[in-house]
Amino acid sequence: MQSPFLIPPFALECKTFAKTSFGASFNHPFVLSLADGSLDPKLFRFYQIQDAKYLEAFSDACAILSTKVKDPDDKLWFIDAARMALVVEGQLHLGYGKSLGYDAKTIANTEPTPNNLAYQNHMVATALQGTILEGLCAIAPCPWLYVELGQHILREKGSIPDDHPYASWLTMYSDPGFNEYMSNLLTRLQKYADLSDSESKNRAKVAFQQSCNYEWMFWEQAWTNQNWPSR
Amino acid sequence: MQSPFLIPPFALECKTFAKTSFGASFNHPFVLSLADGSLDPKLFRFYQIQDAKYLEAFSDACAILSTKVKDPDDKLWFIDAARMALVVEGQLHLGYGKSLGYDAKTIANTEPTPNNLAYQNHMVATALQGTILEGLCAIAPCPWLYVELGQHILREKGSIPDDHPYASWLTMYSDPGFNEYMSNLLTRLQKYADLSDSESKNRAKVAFQQSCNYEWMFWEQAWTNQNWPSR
Amino acid sequence: MQSPFLIPPFALECKTFAKTSFGASFNHPFVLSLADGSLDPKLFRFYQIQDAKYLEAFSDACAILSTKVKDPDDKLWFIDAARMALVVEGQLHLGYGKSLGYDAKTIANTEPTPNNLAYQNHMVATALQGTILEGLCAIAPCPWLYVELGQHILREKGSIPDDHPYASWLTMYSDPGFNEYMSNLLTRLQKYADLSDSESKNRAKVAFQQSCNYEWMFWEQAWTNQNWPSR
Amino acid sequence: MQSPFLIPPFALECKTFAKTSFGASFNHPFVLSLADGSLDPKLFRFYQIQDAKYLEAFSDACAILSTKVKDPDDKLWFIDAARMALVVEGQLHLGYGKSLGYDAKTIANTEPTPNNLAYQNHMVATALQGTILEGLCAIAPCPWLYVELGQHILREKGSIPDDHPYASWLTMYSDPGFNEYMSNLLTRLQKYADLSDSESKNRAKVAFQQSCNYEWMFWEQAWTNQNWPSR
Repeated sequence: MQSPFLIPPFALECKTFAKTSFGASFNHPFVLSLADGSLDPKLFRFYQIQDAKYLEAFSDACAILSTKVKDPDDKLWFIDAARMALVVEGQLHLGYGKSLGYDAKTIANTEPTPNNLAYQNHMVATALQGTILEGLCAIAPCPWLYVELGQHILREKGSIPDDHPYASWLTMYSDPGFNEYMSNLLTRLQKYADLSDSESKNRAKVAFQQSCNYEWMFWEQAWTNQNWPSR
Repeated sequence: MQSPFLIPPFALECKTFAKTSFGASFNHPFVLSLADGSLDPKLFRFYQIQDAKYLEAFSDACAILSTKVKDPDDKLWFIDAARMALVVEGQLHLGYGKSLGYDAKTIANTEPTPNNLAYQNHMVATALQGTILEGLCAIAPCPWLYVELGQHILREKGSIPDDHPYASWLTMYSDPGFNEYMSNLLTRLQKYADLSDSESKNRAKVAFQQSCNYEWMFWEQAWTNQNWPSR
Repeated sequence: MQSPFLIPPFALECKTFAKTSFGASFNHPFVLSLADGSLDPKLFRFYQIQDAKYLEAFSDACAILSTKVKDPDDKLWFIDAARMALVVEGQLHLGYGKSLGYDAKTIANTEPTPNNLAYQNHMVATALQGTILEGLCAIAPCPWLYVELGQHILREKGSIPDDHPYASWLTMYSDPGFNEYMSNLLTRLQKYADLSDSESKNRAKVAFQQSCNYEWMFWEQAWTNQNWPSR
Repeated sequence: MQSPFLIPPFALECKTFAKTSFGASFNHPFVLSLADGSLDPKLFRFYQIQDAKYLEAFSDACAILSTKVKDPDDKLWFIDAARMALVVEGQLHLGYGKSLGYDAKTIANTEPTPNNLAYQNHMVATALQGTILEGLCAIAPCPWLYVELGQHILREKGSIPDDHPYASWLTMYSDPGFNEYMSNLLTRLQKYADLSDSESKNRAKVAFQQSCNYEWMFWEQAWTNQNWPSR
């Protein structure tokens, strides 16, 4: 299908490079059962709590990038991206928290799973130590995959019935409002790719592919209630 | 006079420690002539352009702090503070830029003066390398002093006449809306002071005092059209 | 058994908290077969290349901590720790690289495994974003475990025969010279614990335990030739 | 005169860009009276204590850069540069400290002057937030200028008499051993310039020029016993 937002050359290069990893999430059993509504609410609750923690690190990575870019418009865009990650967390979890039984304190007291912590630190460390392009490539797969997933599920189903147990989640991520966000993100990706040498671009593509793998590993940690090897 | 917002103990300790430095700005010729309207518009233009650059670094320091605090409410507060610094920059400079003849490109192409760069790097380096408390103490004097200055000038004058050449500036910083911002900032200062050892508190007070000095030095660089010693 | 170096109270608290995770490595099949010499050289080669990459991140974490501590003696100690990690890498890999067939280029061109990257980013992100104590707790398990492992294996075997295929490795980590290093590290751990509030200490203990788990996961990635889920 | 070490094209571009600022130090009264031995020992003591603090920040900037470069040889080189800054501090100050009456505690308890703090934060913030090239350009003027100054004074005087009050200082910085260090530093500068876009190169040249100005401002703070505007 055609993308609802423009994909500039370097973004396309990243996605092509990480094609298998990006696509793997579409067939993960967690995603399939989330889409058809058969997902055990306990697994969804586990997923949501881990996701809330993840979004804090996503916000951190965006905030760090806001301090590295020089253009005030870019600075503001990254701050708004950091903000949105936290606000989305707040809104989504207020609703699901009530029905599934968790709140801000539950989130704060839950340790991230190994796959979650690995993904979080990947974004944060790449934003802190890498170039702007590398940092951007580490955060891009999360919104990109969710938007594609949301719109893919919506297309498959035709519409999201109100009584679908995960309607709020599906509705949020299939929202066309995300297309503009994605378009802005990928435009910036291109801008910083144009300023980068080939070594940095290669590292950025690897960071992108790693984040695509981390996306799959995120579904996996939720599906398996992942825990640390030992305590 | 009484502060229009609550000053918790550690904030008071900082302000007492830095009393002379904090107070020095009230009598700087730049401030006095800004208040009475006699300030040369060329000096105000110089000041505004440097200020726009300064606010970008203030935003960076807040963004960095947002990544260091763990509590999502605090995280959001710092992101909003980073956001406000940039938005304020945008709004104020759109108006004054038109009447005084400068725009985003002018700002981008202007090198910060020595005093400005020193202040910017002080905030950013303290936020990055110091504790949360030290970072907070490095950024607190800027809004605190501006709010007190704005309200002090308003009290002195009774009201700001519409035809005062710097009415927008004076009105903005005497806005009681800043009181809530300050109250939130100082509450967080106390929270992180309560978690800090005495060495860190001492370093934080020194960082606060240095920022108070940098505030005075900021007026000074504008008043003297400061330049680098040599080119 | 008695530790050959002094273990101050907070270090003991960390080790007790992470007892099971710390101990798990002693029984990992990779470690057992490394000790008895039966380990497949291909697995050891895989391990060594990943380890070389790991040590670069360990060096980074130490370098970051050197910039956060204020005392020049502490600063120098962390720089020396960063240095040693790289020099050890160089020396060990020069020897094993020749016999097992890899060099600096092989190391540079190898992508870290998921478990390795997760561990690296855990150390780096904790050093960058956490307190000094948290950063120290993220790096401490690596040398501590290796020293205990090396000395444990030496005790079990009585001595390391020259013709043991992994003699250089075993000799290096059972070297009593590491005891002074550990003693210095744990003394600093106590110093910064004494300056920390209880929340930060709790986070530090969790970071310590996570690193103990990452140690086990590091043997595991080598034992299983771990790869990313998809490409 | 001819440089005793190779100056690759980008280094030359920086030095040409900052020619006046680089050259200004050669005629500063502090430098002239240091060279002819007439400098008041009290001023030299003031300078040395501030310099010791400065070298800690120089070490920090090098340590930060060591974590950003990927090549292990570069990593080690920056760690060694960080190390040397601290060791030089230690050695020089042990000797002068005894004769001029100051020690490690004096250094720790002295607040940096405004010019010193500004220079320190410039190096640290540029290393943390800028590209590798920008960070390198912020630290390069310090050793480069000292080596040129040291060798210039030696040439002017023919030799350093043992009874010159500042013989240790002059001997250290005219030591040809620094030529190799400079050669290695400037080779790396070229390497990272080759990987940089033109915007980043421009920012790097500005950072270089600012550091040249900060060098002059460092003599100035010592010459004037600079203090903060108010306390």
